[in-house]
Amino acid sequence: LRSISRYLDVPSAGLLVAAPGDDAAVWRGDPIVVATTDTMVEEIDFRLQWPGFDFRTLGRRLMAINLSDLAAMGAEPRHALVSLSLRGTLHVSDVGRLYRGIAEQAHRFHCTVAGGDLSGTLGPLTLTATLVGRLDSARALLRRSGARPGWVIAVTGQLGGAAAGLRLLESGGKPGSRDERAWVSAQLDPKPRIAAGRALVESGIRVGGDISDGLSREVERLVEPTRLGATIEVARLPLARGLRRKQWALAVTDSEDFELICAAPPARMRIAQRALQRINVPLTPVGEIDRQPGIRFRDGARTESLQTAGYEHFR
Amino acid sequence: LRSISRYLDVPSAGLLVAAPGDDAAVWRGDPIVVATTDTMVEEIDFRLQWPGFDFRTLGRRLMAINLSDLAAMGAEPRHALVSLSLRGTLHVSDVGRLYRGIAEQAHRFHCTVAGGDLSGTLGPLTLTATLVGRLDSARALLRRSGARPGWVIAVTGQLGGAAAGLRLLESGGKPGSRDERAWVSAQLDPKPRIAAGRALVESGIRVGGDISDGLSREVERLVEPTRLGATIEVARLPLARGLRRKQWALAVTDSEDFELICAAPPARMRIAQRALQRINVPLTPVGEIDRQPGIRFRDGARTESLQTAGYEHFR
Repeated sequence: LRSISRYLDVPSAGLLVAAPGDDAAVWRGDPIVVATTDTMVEEIDFRLQWPGFDFRTLGRRLMAINLSDLAAMGAEPRHALVSLSLRGTLHVSDVGRLYRGIAEQAHRFHCTVAGGDLSGTLGPLTLTATLVGRLDSARALLRRSGARPGWVIAVTGQLGGAAAGLRLLESGGKPGSRDERAWVSAQLDPKPRIAAGRALVESGIRVGGDISDGLSREVERLVEPTRLGATIEVARLPLARGLRRKQWALAVTDSEDFELICAAPPARMRIAQRALQRINVPLTPVGEIDRQPGIRFRDGARTESLQTAGYEHFR
Repeated sequence: LRSISRYLDVPSAGLLVAAPGDDAAVWRGDPIVVATTDTMVEEIDFRLQWPGFDFRTLGRRLMAINLSDLAAMGAEPRHALVSLSLRGTLHVSDVGRLYRGIAEQAHRFHCTVAGGDLSGTLGPLTLTATLVGRLDSARALLRRSGARPGWVIAVTGQLGGAAAGLRLLESGGKPGSRDERAWVSAQLDPKPRIAAGRALVESGIRVGGDISDGLSREVERLVEPTRLGATIEVARLPLARGLRRKQWALAVTDSEDFELICAAPPARMRIAQRALQRINVPLTPVGEIDRQPGIRFRDGARTESLQTAGYEHFR
C-alpha cells in the first residue's frame, strides 16, 4: 500500500493550491468558515460482522456524518481531511474501497479530499474526518440558540429508520422486505441534508441542527439553555415506511437519523416548507416550543415525558 | 464527564463566531488556508507504561505534531479541531490533563481549539487533531518541489534527540543525565518550529518541509520526483547534545525530530541563517543537492548510501 495520495484530489488553480506530497493542504479560503470533525470506531459505531457490511459504504458514512454537521449549520461543503487508523492485517482492496467511498461521497457534495493521514493500529479501526465548509454570512446560519415560545418545531425526511436498521443489523438478520432494506440503508448509508440546510437558511430559518443524537435530545438542546420546553405530537412524527405508530420511540431516542430539525414562527415555517418542497425534501411540523420546561410527547390523550436518551459518550 | 465544551474556546466577535454547543465551529476565514491532520495511536505512537508518561504532555504532543506540519509550510496556526477516542475506563482527571495539554499548546501558538469530538473505544486510545492555519500568499510558502542542483540543504535545531529518547523510553529506563532528559523531552514534548517556518518563508526560502519521518526520507522527497540526488556531510549534522558522532544514523532515520529542512541557493541560505539567528534557532547547512540520483552520506573518506528508513505506515 504505497500511500493515500492517489485518493487525494489533485491541486488545481481554482480550489486547491498544494497537496498531495506536501506536509499540509493549501486552499483558497472563504470569508466565513464552518468546520467539524467526527470519528467512527469499530465495535462502537459499526461492525465488520454486520450482514452485508462493505467498506465503500463505510467510507460514505464517515463523510455523511460529518457532512450532516455542515448541513445542520446551513453550510456548503468545501474540503475534507481524513485520518484513518487501520490494522496492518486489513486487505489492501478493502482500504481501497474505504477510500473510494470517502471520495465518491465527497464529490457528490462538491467537496475535495484535500489531505489525510494513515496510521497503523493494533485495535479497532478508527476513522476520523474533518469537514470544512463555507457560509455566505456570519449571521445567515442555523444555530441551537434563539428559539422562542410559540415557534413551530419541524423535521426533514422520515424518522426511526436508522434505529430500526441498527436493530436489524445487530440481530444478525438480513433485511428481507423493501422497508427493511430502506431502514438498513438509513443506518449504513445516510444522506446528508446539505441542500435542505441551505434552503432552510435561505428561507430565513435561523434555529436548527441535526438530530443524529436523537430528536428528543436535540429538542432539549434547543430549549434547555433558556429554560423553555416543548411539546411534540406523536401522531405527527413522520415515521419511516413500515414502522408502526407504537414504535415511535425509535424516532425520538438514539435515532441516528441524519435529518435536520428547525424551529421558527409558524408563517416562516410555511415559507421554509414550500422551499424544501421544491427540492423534494419533506419538512414536517411535529410540535411547538412552549414556556413549560421539559419535553412532552403527546399521543392522543396521553402525555409522556421522555428521559433524555440521546447517545452521549461518557455522559 | 459532561462534555468537551468547557475545553473549547468561547466564541468571540473577532475570531470564532459559533461553537461550542452548535454542530460545527464557525470562524472568519483567511484568503489562503493551510490544513493538516495527524493521529496518534496508543501502543504505536506512545505507551502509557513509559517511565514518567503523563497525559498533559501527550496532549501537547498531539498538537505539536500537527503544528509542525503547518510550520513545514511556513504557515501561521489559527484553529484546531480535536477528535479523541478514549476507553470508558480512563480516569476523568487524565482526560482533563489531556485536554489541558492540548489547550495550552494551542494557546502558546495563538491557535483556538474551535471544536472536537469525543467517542468511546474498546481499544487503544486514538487521538486526532486537525489544524487550520493561514498564509499571506499562495506563492510564499514552503513546498517539497523546486529544489535545484547546487542548492544547499539545511536543518533547524538539533537532530537525533527524539530517536535517542524513544530508545530510552522503550528500554524502560528512567532518564538519568541532563542530556538523557533532553532526549526524552525531544520525543515526548517536541517544540513545533512555527516561528522558524515563517522566518524561512520571509527570507525567500520556498523549498522545505519537516523531518519528522527522518532526514533521509525527507531529502529523498525533495529530490526524487525530479531525479536529482543529494550528498549529506555527516560531520556537519547538528547532533543533539550527548550523542556521539558514530550514532549519526539516529539523526537521519526514524528521527521523529520535529525540525525543519530547507533547500536554497547558498546566498539565499545565508540570509535565512541570519533571520533564524535573530529568533535563536540554529539553521545548519548539512549538504547539497546534486545531479546524481540517490542520497549519499559522506563521513570523511567513506560514503554510505542509506536505504530509506523513514517511518511510513503500510509501506
